[in-house]
Formats: sequence, structure tokens, C-alpha cells
Amino acid sequence: MRALMVGRFQPFHKGHLGSVKHILEEFDDVIIAIGSAQHSHTVDNPFTGGERHLMISRAMVAEGITDYFLVPVPDINQYGLWVAHVQVLVPPFETIFSNNPLTLRLFSERGYDARPLPLYDRKRFSGKSIRKMMVKDGEWEPLVPQQVAKTIEELDGINRMKDLCTPVPGEEPVV
Amino acid sequence: MRALMVGRFQPFHKGHLGSVKHILEEFDDVIIAIGSAQHSHTVDNPFTGGERHLMISRAMVAEGITDYFLVPVPDINQYGLWVAHVQVLVPPFETIFSNNPLTLRLFSERGYDARPLPLYDRKRFSGKSIRKMMVKDGEWEPLVPQQVAKTIEELDGINRMKDLCTPVPGEEPVV
Amino acid sequence: MRALMVGRFQPFHKGHLGSVKHILEEFDDVIIAIGSAQHSHTVDNPFTGGERHLMISRAMVAEGITDYFLVPVPDINQYGLWVAHVQVLVPPFETIFSNNPLTLRLFSERGYDARPLPLYDRKRFSGKSIRKMMVKDGEWEPLVPQQVAKTIEELDGINRMKDLCTPVPGEEPVV
Amino acid sequence: MRALMVGRFQPFHKGHLGSVKHILEEFDDVIIAIGSAQHSHTVDNPFTGGERHLMISRAMVAEGITDYFLVPVPDINQYGLWVAHVQVLVPPFETIFSNNPLTLRLFSERGYDARPLPLYDRKRFSGKSIRKMMVKDGEWEPLVPQQVAKTIEELDGINRMKDLCTPVPGEEPVV
Amino acid sequence: MRALMVGRFQPFHKGHLGSVKHILEEFDDVIIAIGSAQHSHTVDNPFTGGERHLMISRAMVAEGITDYFLVPVPDINQYGLWVAHVQVLVPPFETIFSNNPLTLRLFSERGYDARPLPLYDRKRFSGKSIRKMMVKDGEWEPLVPQQVAKTIEELDGINRMKDLCTPVPGEEPVV
Amino acid sequence: MRALMVGRFQPFHKGHLGSVKHILEEFDDVIIAIGSAQHSHTVDNPFTGGERHLMISRAMVAEGITDYFLVPVPDINQYGLWVAHVQVLVPPFETIFSNNPLTLRLFSERGYDARPLPLYDRKRFSGKSIRKMMVKDGEWEPLVPQQVAKTIEELDGINRMKDLCTPVPGEEPVV
Repeated sequence: MRALMVGRFQPFHKGHLGSVKHILEEFDDVIIAIGSAQHSHTVDNPFTGGERHLMISRAMVAEGITDYFLVPVPDINQYGLWVAHVQVLVPPFETIFSNNPLTLRLFSERGYDARPLPLYDRKRFSGKSIRKMMVKDGEWEPLVPQQVAKTIEELDGINRMKDLCTPVPGEEPVV
Repeated sequence: MRALMVGRFQPFHKGHLGSVKHILEEFDDVIIAIGSAQHSHTVDNPFTGGERHLMISRAMVAEGITDYFLVPVPDINQYGLWVAHVQVLVPPFETIFSNNPLTLRLFSERGYDARPLPLYDRKRFSGKSIRKMMVKDGEWEPLVPQQVAKTIEELDGINRMKDLCTPVPGEEPVV
Repeated sequence: MRALMVGRFQPFHKGHLGSVKHILEEFDDVIIAIGSAQHSHTVDNPFTGGERHLMISRAMVAEGITDYFLVPVPDINQYGLWVAHVQVLVPPFETIFSNNPLTLRLFSERGYDARPLPLYDRKRFSGKSIRKMMVKDGEWEPLVPQQVAKTIEELDGINRMKDLCTPVPGEEPVV
Repeated sequence: MRALMVGRFQPFHKGHLGSVKHILEEFDDVIIAIGSAQHSHTVDNPFTGGERHLMISRAMVAEGITDYFLVPVPDINQYGLWVAHVQVLVPPFETIFSNNPLTLRLFSERGYDARPLPLYDRKRFSGKSIRKMMVKDGEWEPLVPQQVAKTIEELDGINRMKDLCTPVPGEEPVV
Repeated sequence: MRALMVGRFQPFHKGHLGSVKHILEEFDDVIIAIGSAQHSHTVDNPFTGGERHLMISRAMVAEGITDYFLVPVPDINQYGLWVAHVQVLVPPFETIFSNNPLTLRLFSERGYDARPLPLYDRKRFSGKSIRKMMVKDGEWEPLVPQQVAKTIEELDGINRMKDLCTPVPGEEPVV
Repeated sequence: MRALMVGRFQPFHKGHLGSVKHILEEFDDVIIAIGSAQHSHTVDNPFTGGERHLMISRAMVAEGITDYFLVPVPDINQYGLWVAHVQVLVPPFETIFSNNPLTLRLFSERGYDARPLPLYDRKRFSGKSIRKMMVKDGEWEPLVPQQVAKTIEELDGINRMKDLCTPVPGEEPVV
């Protein structure tokens, strides 16, 4: 039996890792879908799909986890096509884990077993709050797997994020 | 003579129906363009283009209205192409009815007779307020044609809308 | 019970009309999906989606057929999404009629009842051969419903088709 | 040596003109990229790419500036592709001028010399505040080159902008 | 009065230049639209939009021609939108010159004065045959303006074209 | 050091596997990019991106290969953006292996070390000829890794391919 887990993983943190382990207790393997794979260089999506692929792969190796598929999934921006879009890009699966009520409904309407993500400490492990800490020189490293922190450092990720948060002098958005 | 009327019809209500009847007093037939046809499963666009097609068709049959064309029109997201995009998808027409000043201007700039929609009680018949009632178990059924209410029930539409309004636990948007 | 029938209808001919009638003997209503709806002004797709909408509507009125839904469906150019794309745009259905083995397979893989189109004289009623006759001043009118022929005349369709077939002097494709 | 300068130029004002002149003191020629070229008829992007092309060309002629390339650049909405997208559409260049920290970072990451725009009086020459004045019959003409004001008048631009700012009666966005 | 002339200009040759001069005898200025602007690195479209922009600009300077607008136009791949797409990107115009019967028909249907391109020696000045000569070390330089030949040399264009024509060893298309 | 290898892998065969092993003799790890990832259900692209992901992952496990990244890459259909598109989706790399002269040129122009694929017996291991054998009940299994053959059987892949090759009765392409 195979389960799907979807996230943007900006960045991949220990809460995500806990979910992966939890799912693997029940399923033979897990598909980790990297959502919004085409986006990068924004405050909410600082890392490219490829950079996130690298972070997660390294974290899996360090944990000795091998029963997983790692698949970038670009946005499709049309909910009626979202399930089919995922089906095309990932290996077959029967169960999907998510905490998003819309995702659960879309997959349920297509006959999938759709369940809430195995719980972890959401207050502590939150992508948004971790990104804030990264920009404000907070204590974010303990919240992500060591290999993720190392990869972000290699990519000069913190400086990139700080640049993305710099306000534009004047009002004309250039891009 | 043929007139065009554009709306998203989320859902099609008695105000829309009144406009259709009003237009047919002056014109031979009316084109009802279902805007944002590709969207569904959002708070503002809960129903698919196909579901809206079904609602409106049934309401027309029940009213004995036959002089109409029902055409889904996906968004094009570029105002300079909007008029040409509509022209391609619908039968030829000379007049457009809308309450949107931008729509009126775009069609006027291309030489169309662009007029405000025949009036109905906007306070009572508003898509937004009807959608709110649907989620909050208000008295929405009297505001839409009976066939529309029946179709929404068949589709389990109220439960879908309630799911779409459920807040996401935690901060990561999945889709 | 509702059935779907897909075609490009360039133009809608008596073979198509025969299929519609045949399907309506067994089903409550039929969805007529106008494929490649966004295309026009090419040798194989001379008429816009809106022009085809007009032709077919008029033919249905003339035949007294009312149990149908007429829905333009733009191409999506990705077979893995084709079924979901159609599902979003048309009312719910259980059966699809097509003579294309790919279409039959795609809908079968998603659990639909997929059947070959009710037979008609394919040698005589073929879009391609009718289009050829139109350009070469052949006897095409008897092969299409009278309202279709009338609409093509209104649109100055034969002259458009002849223009589309004129070879370009010199080699630079402009568009 | 050739430099790139990116803006939306809604409209092209004397601050932009000052930057062009400043860049040409150091560089052989300047590429003026018209960003969001596909957008028009919105409050923030009232003029089409073609209309902006006309304004800027006329202003350059009036100033006797000839060492420039004027290139519309549509949005690509994916920052990871933005630099490559610009590279494809404009002549080769070595330096980019911008006040947007994201733009500077994206081009720096690809090895370009990325510099802040030569200064001008940002408080006075701001697209946003000029657009506000245009709608509110303020004194905007002195802030743009004379040829720009003349072109906007030819296009009946002020009336278009006022229409775009008219609130929609009722809540349904049509487009 | 302003006229539009559309081409892909792969590369811009003396036939194109002759047309520009001919049009300027009758019109105040000419818009040169670079079609298929987004394409490059193929046998039929070897040069990027930016590279073609550079070639043509330099040829105009060398000829002392100033009454022109040079505008890249990406493909839109939907003929029904083609006229509106061009209208958005270029300054207003009344007449279009083309030798493509489809282009002439599309603009005529929208009310433009659409005329065949002023004649030049099509046998000698043909993009396709010039591209062939470039790959086969033929005498192509005399067929293009001197600045065009110089630009192609700067870009190492002949080697690029030869690479594009190299057959792929084995059968798997990589891109 | 990390290398990139691009292919469509329809299906992944022993020639591909040989290249992977050869690259890993020199590099620390290899990125296997699944090209045309969005396509499926055509004669040349029978399997979805997800199905190919599954085949290749299983073959790697069976071979005990772990130093690889497997990344689906959808087409972008614009060569000038191809390199940037790949850069966004995969982990950083310095060298690319390909037998396609265009791919080699595009990556060379952006400064990559671009090399021909390590040789294998191209006559025997060719996607196209293997697909032909699959449809004609030839001896294809020995040409692909055992896990690939097993996956294709699970997916009922041979029957799908035979359906895709069935000629359409009549001339109207439905999709």
C-alpha cells in the first residue's frame, strides 16, 4: 500500500519528517509531493523545486529512510484538475494525507481514502514561523533536519531570504 | 438581434433570471456566458462550469425559455484580449449587458452597444450574499429558481461549500 | 441517464445528427461537446466555437430536439488530464460515445462506460470530405442539416475556407 | 557596453527619462524593457504595451535620443525563469539597473552587474502618484514628457482611467 | 498614417528592407513586428527575438531610417485572437501588409486595410533559402544588409545553425 | 560533483541503466531527469511521468544504486528557456550528458560542461524499437531491467500501447 503526502516544504522541517515516519509505520511506501514546485525567490517560496529536492533527499539519507518517492508537482491553478494532475505525475497510490480541507474534499470526491496528516506539534513546526526566524536570525536550525540546515547554508539561503524581504524603494514593482 | 449577458452564476439566482426575461422582451435571443468557467471548489466559485450549465439549463426549461445560448467562457486574464476571446466562443451579437464599468468600456472601445444590466433588486439577489446564506444554513432557496436549488442538492453542494470554508489547521496552504 | 458525444463538428453534418438521435433513443439526454473549441480559421478547423454553437443549435431547433447540452471544450493537449478537463466543463454523465480508440481507453481507465459511436454511413458523412467539397464547389449542402448550410452562407464561410486554402506566395509563414 | 533598464512605464515620466539620460552618460546604449507588456485596462496598468511603446518612442525622438532599444516584455510569473525570459527577448547586455531588490538578486545570481537605478526625485516622479493625479484631475502633465501627455490625450486615456476606477454596482466581478 | 508589416526575419534580408522603404514612401511610419519572437535555436527560427531586434535596429541605423517601431510579437497559436494580440502589443495602425492570405483575411474580417507586401525578388530574397546557404557555406552575405551579417558573425550564428542541423545519433529526442 | 542525464525513458531500458552506471564511476551522484513528464497515452509517450518514476525507482533499488535524484521535467516548448527551466527543477549540477546536439549547444551557451552520453549499443537499446516490439509482441523484456518489465505488466501497459496504435475508424480526430 502506498500513501501520498503533499507539502511545499519551504523548508522541510522536523514536523514533516515526523509525518513521513508515521506514515511509513502503516504503509509500504510514501510519495512526498513537493507542491508549488515551479516557484522560488518569494517570501513564502524562497527555494526552488530543485533546492527542496536536494534538502529532502539528504534528510532521508541521513535518517536511513528509503521507501519513498520524491516528486515535484507544479501548481495547476484549477482545482477541478488538481487530482488528475497529481495522478499523472506520481506513482499510483490509494491514500492521501493532508490537513487542508479542500485537498481532502477534492480527493474524496474522486474516491480516495483522504485522511488528516498524522499529528505533530504544529505550533512549533510551522513553515511560516520558521521562515520568519530565518530572516530575523532566530533559532531555526533545531527545527529542521541537520541536512536541511546544511543545504540552506550551502545555497546562501538566509541572505537570499533577507533580500526578498527588503522593501522596494519607491512604488513601482519591476517584475 | 442578439444580446450577450455575462456572469459567473455562482449560483444562478432569480435576479439573473429576471435579467434574461427582460432582455428577451427586446431581443430575439440572448447569449448567457458562464464566466470563470474553469474555476470551481473555491469559496467564491464553488460550482464547476458543467454544474452551472446544468443548473441554468434546467431553470430555462422550467421557465419555458428557449431563445438562449448557454456558453461557458474560461478566464483569459488579459483585458486587451477579453473581447476577442468572447467573440470566438459565442455566436455573433451586437449588444452586451453588464454592470461592470470595465466590461462596458472594453466592449465600447471595440464598437459594441454596451448597456447596464436591466435592473433587479440587487440587495436581495446577490451571489455573494446567497453563498453566505448557503454556508450558514440561511434561507437561500427562495432566492434561486427551484431547479437550481434541486441541482445543488443533488450535487451535495452545501456540504462542499461548508468544507471550502473550513479553516486550515496550521499555516501551510497545500494546493 | 446521460451520455456524452465529442466531436469537432467542422461542420456539423447529417452523420452527427443521426448519432444524436440514436443516442437519444436510449438516453434521457445527450451532451454534445464541441472539441477544439478555441480553434478557427485553419483548413481543418475553419469555424469558431461560437459559429459551430450557432449551427448546431439551429439544427437542433429545426429537428425539434431539446434534450441536449451543447458545450464548447477547448483542447488541453495533455491526455492524462483530458478526462478531468471534460468532467469540469460538462454536466455529469455515465456513458461516452466515440470512435477514437484513445478516447475510449482514457475514459475506460477512469471507469466510464465507453462505447463506439452509433454507426452511420462514414464514407458519405465525413467532415474532411465535406470540407474538401466546400472548397471545390462540390455538392456538400445535402450532407449537412439545412440550418447548418444556411449559417455557413450567412458567415460567408465558403469564401473564408477558400482563402485558408490559398497557398502563400513565398516561404515565410507570417503567423 | 549596453545596459538594461526595466519598468512598467504606466506612464513613462520625467524620472524615467532622467534615468535613461544618466545611463547613456556611461553606456553606449540602453535597452528599455516595458514590463507587464501584456497588461492594460487596469487601475495599475491602464495602457497597453503598444500604447506605451508609442509614448516612449515619441519622447525619445523629442529628446533626440537614438541609442536605445525599446522592447516589450510580458510577465512570466515564475522568478526562476525571469532572467532567461529577458535574455531571450532583448539584445545582449552586461549591466542591469533596477531599484527592486529581487530583480537585483535574480540577475546577480546569474552573474550580471546589477545596480540601483540612477537617482531621481522619487517623491515627485512616481507612477502611482501620477496615476492618482490623472484620475483626480491633478497637475500631472508637468511630470511627464510633453509627447507622453499628448499621446495620452490622443488615446482618451484620462477617461479610460476614470472608467477603470468606477466602482462596480453590486458585487459580482464580471471578468 | 501608420502601416504594420509582420515577419519572422530569420534573418532580416534585403527583400525585407526593400519592403520597409517602399511602405515608407506612402506612410508616415511603419511598425515592424518580429513574429514568433519567443522562438530560437531551431532550424527555422535560429535567432532569438533579442538577436533579431539587434540585427534590424542596426540595419535601420545604417540606412538612416528612423520612422519605424520595432516590436517583438510572440505566437498566440489561436487565429481567432491573433488580431487582438497584435493590437495590444503595437502602436495603433490602419493598414497591414502581408503576403499570407490567412493574415490578410483575419485583419480584413476586423475591418483593416489589408494589402499584399510591396513586391521584391522573392526568388532571390527568401529566408528559407538564405538559411540553407548559411548552413552550407553558400554566398548569403550579399543577400542581407551588412549590419545583419556583422551581427550574425558576432553571435557565432553560423556555428549555431550548423549545430541545429546536426542529426541526433540514436532516436530519442531529448527536449 | 554531480551530473545531469535527460531522457524520456519510454521505457527505461538497459542502455539507460548502463549510462547511469558509467556516469556514477566518475561523479558523486547523477540527476535523472524524466523529460516530457506531462505526456502520456501517445504512441511515442505511452507512460505517465508517475509510471516512469515508479519503473526507474524500482530498477535502481534492484541494482542497489542510491546516489541519484529522479526528477520529472515537463516540456517548456521554448528552447531559449530550457536551461533555466531545468535549473529550477533539479539540484545544482556542473555537467550534462546528452546525445542531442541542440541540448549540448544550449547548455554549452550557458557555460555548462556538456558531453555526449557514455556509449552503449544504440542499435539494440533504442526506445523506439523497444516500443515497436512491445506492440508487435516481440522479445522486448530482455532489453529492459526486470523491474521495468514487471511494472509495465502491472500497469497493463502492453494493452494500452496496442490501443494507442489502433487506427481511428473514420477521419475525425476526437481529441
